[in-house]
Amino acid sequence: MSKKSIYKPRPVSGFPEFLPEIRRIEQQWLDIIREKFELYGYCSIETPSIEELAVIEAKSDGGDDADKEIYVLERLHKEDGDKEARLALHFDQTVPLARYTAQHFNDLVFPFKRYQMQRVWRGERPQAGRFREFRQCDIDVINVDHLPLHFDAEMPAIIWETLSSLPGMDGEKFQIQISNRKILIGLLEGLGVENIPEITRWIDKLDKLPKDQIANELKNSGLSQNDIQKIWDTIEKSDQLQSITALNETMKEGIEELQFVMNGLSHLPEGAVVADLSIVRGLDYYTGTVYETRFTDDPDYGAICAGGRYNDLASHYINKKLPGVGISIGFSRLFDKLLKKQKFIDLKISPADVLITLPNEESRSSVSQLATQLRQRGIKVEQYHAPQKFGKQLSYAEKKGIPYVWFPDTNEVKNMKTGEQSKADTSTWKP
Amino acid sequence: MSKKSIYKPRPVSGFPEFLPEIRRIEQQWLDIIREKFELYGYCSIETPSIEELAVIEAKSDGGDDADKEIYVLERLHKEDGDKEARLALHFDQTVPLARYTAQHFNDLVFPFKRYQMQRVWRGERPQAGRFREFRQCDIDVINVDHLPLHFDAEMPAIIWETLSSLPGMDGEKFQIQISNRKILIGLLEGLGVENIPEITRWIDKLDKLPKDQIANELKNSGLSQNDIQKIWDTIEKSDQLQSITALNETMKEGIEELQFVMNGLSHLPEGAVVADLSIVRGLDYYTGTVYETRFTDDPDYGAICAGGRYNDLASHYINKKLPGVGISIGFSRLFDKLLKKQKFIDLKISPADVLITLPNEESRSSVSQLATQLRQRGIKVEQYHAPQKFGKQLSYAEKKGIPYVWFPDTNEVKNMKTGEQSKADTSTWKP
Repeated sequence: MSKKSIYKPRPVSGFPEFLPEIRRIEQQWLDIIREKFELYGYCSIETPSIEELAVIEAKSDGGDDADKEIYVLERLHKEDGDKEARLALHFDQTVPLARYTAQHFNDLVFPFKRYQMQRVWRGERPQAGRFREFRQCDIDVINVDHLPLHFDAEMPAIIWETLSSLPGMDGEKFQIQISNRKILIGLLEGLGVENIPEITRWIDKLDKLPKDQIANELKNSGLSQNDIQKIWDTIEKSDQLQSITALNETMKEGIEELQFVMNGLSHLPEGAVVADLSIVRGLDYYTGTVYETRFTDDPDYGAICAGGRYNDLASHYINKKLPGVGISIGFSRLFDKLLKKQKFIDLKISPADVLITLPNEESRSSVSQLATQLRQRGIKVEQYHAPQKFGKQLSYAEKKGIPYVWFPDTNEVKNMKTGEQSKADTSTWKP
Repeated sequence: MSKKSIYKPRPVSGFPEFLPEIRRIEQQWLDIIREKFELYGYCSIETPSIEELAVIEAKSDGGDDADKEIYVLERLHKEDGDKEARLALHFDQTVPLARYTAQHFNDLVFPFKRYQMQRVWRGERPQAGRFREFRQCDIDVINVDHLPLHFDAEMPAIIWETLSSLPGMDGEKFQIQISNRKILIGLLEGLGVENIPEITRWIDKLDKLPKDQIANELKNSGLSQNDIQKIWDTIEKSDQLQSITALNETMKEGIEELQFVMNGLSHLPEGAVVADLSIVRGLDYYTGTVYETRFTDDPDYGAICAGGRYNDLASHYINKKLPGVGISIGFSRLFDKLLKKQKFIDLKISPADVLITLPNEESRSSVSQLATQLRQRGIKVEQYHAPQKFGKQLSYAEKKGIPYVWFPDTNEVKNMKTGEQSKADTSTWKP
């Protein structure tokens, strides 16, 4: 073999990877989220990592900001005559869901309740909580023509239960904020405002910019002092919805829907969810309920969970009216936050329950038998690989954090934490 | 909203996706594989879906056939001054493992026993059992300087146990074939053959082409009739290794190693593994033990599992000797085969254990309470979403295959299979 030059690899910015002990916690998180989603009868789907670029472009109507972030695939060495459709990595799980629902429309049972937990890719500038490859955990329900409002209340209940049960989330302060876009839009329509999207975009920034600055911007956008005051008054009544006077049917609908949703969440602990009429969500396709979840002690970090209701999921791909409601956990953003806060330090778990030592080469096959017996009982067993000094074998268990070491010659098991050592029986011993 | 044109989506060749009932079986498979790998103390890692192109090219030494299949990423709208390293989707999990091991060398405990179950991408022509996006389930162990042979026997044991426990694999005939490249290479060296890689490539085709044709090709490559006969004689003695006369130290080592590995697998059922000296594996980096698993009744389908031992995993990225042994389940290929054989038809399972009907709008909150109680006991519960006629609610359960329906007004549960209906208690009922 000729001498090769060495290319020293380095981390690629925006594409995180973890050491085994952190990966293990990540896997635990994924398991818990999946378990919670399934407890509510949602089924899993996964879609290819790619979509035809035409599918994505049908959705984005071109010119979208998100377009810049799309990664397209090229074969390293293209052959002449390659005339295949251009493919792009999906940048969220909503476009794939819309495409999937349209494509498999005749084979799905509606309401179609699905969860989806995959990687997505965006070629944006990496920064705190923003990655180029990251995981989202989405849950959506879609129906034909009409979808009961009951589901709008189910989403935050699932999310609350899920986020609260993730290892490391104890002591973290977060809150699910809920609004209904019909309220603000009805209000602005009632006030005769014309550039509603521009106005709502400013209101959406209330958690980031000083209120005075927003007021100024609203004024510059043509709102009167009186209009602005009406907006502030309405938002301030977030926690007393019944006291808001609806200016029109849209606003009335919004208030009633939001009240229905909040009533459906009364079983959650105090402060878990809150109505907050300043929540707008940037994406224009939301038409009713909107959700946002942030760390209350670090609201600038960005939403760790967001979603809402949309009137029509897949109109770009199928001539059916498919209303839905969904919510997405920004898994990587949430996980990274707790990782940086060192919340996982005490959670590191060994990949094995017990290490069986190897006294000598001759005992290898009896050690294997012992290992097999324990594995049949669901115990995770690592056999030490070489007949080295016991000190070395013990120190391996210690380095890997394996909690027990089994000495097969005496059938004694050592608890690595307490140092205690006692006789053990293969058919009854438990880690 | 302006009227939009509809883009009717179509499946993208080589990028499979499944309906929820098949996806559920796929997830079961992934769970079982992971469980088995963990029973042996292997830890999970995942790496980004991409690598720097420089990392892949350091490995492939350019000019490789696989290069053509590499997908590189391009941002759809590149900005001027983009000077980032080129990124490519990984086409296997071995290059990422090598890079990972080199990069995190100081933070890993050796022997480093890891499993990895991710998607990989190859821009090749889709055909039976070959996809452009597919899953591999890899298990490898890597050590510094020296790795005990014991691990070469552990791999097929894990694989046998894993493949045998996958739903739908009952009645499927497959066999793990094992060889050691030192035997054939030692033999060819002993015979004074010079173009060994060319010769082994032909021998590797013994399962696909008639023996006479291979003999002819070997003759064309310069081997004498006598040499060819010696090769045939050796291969025929695959099941009586001790009767093979070693021509040199390499061949002797190979025979001893293969015997050690086969002895370590004697606990497996008759026919599960077999020594087969015609197994070579295409990849040149294997240096000892090699594995291959095919369907015995459809050997042309391609290997559903393959691997082997390598002397030096990461010499392209780090100046350390890192021998290893590993094996990879071609998950998508295997899964697709059983799917096409309709082996999953009886396995389809509902995402929910029980559907609770909704008698009327007023009972929604008491139904939600009932659902919560059952979920707290780990039961997967779907609430019917609207107070429709019971017939409609029952037919929904039937379409989704939900096995039980709970009527909250009488607290009776109907078994959808038998039609039986009986009283049920929320604190004791089980699906």
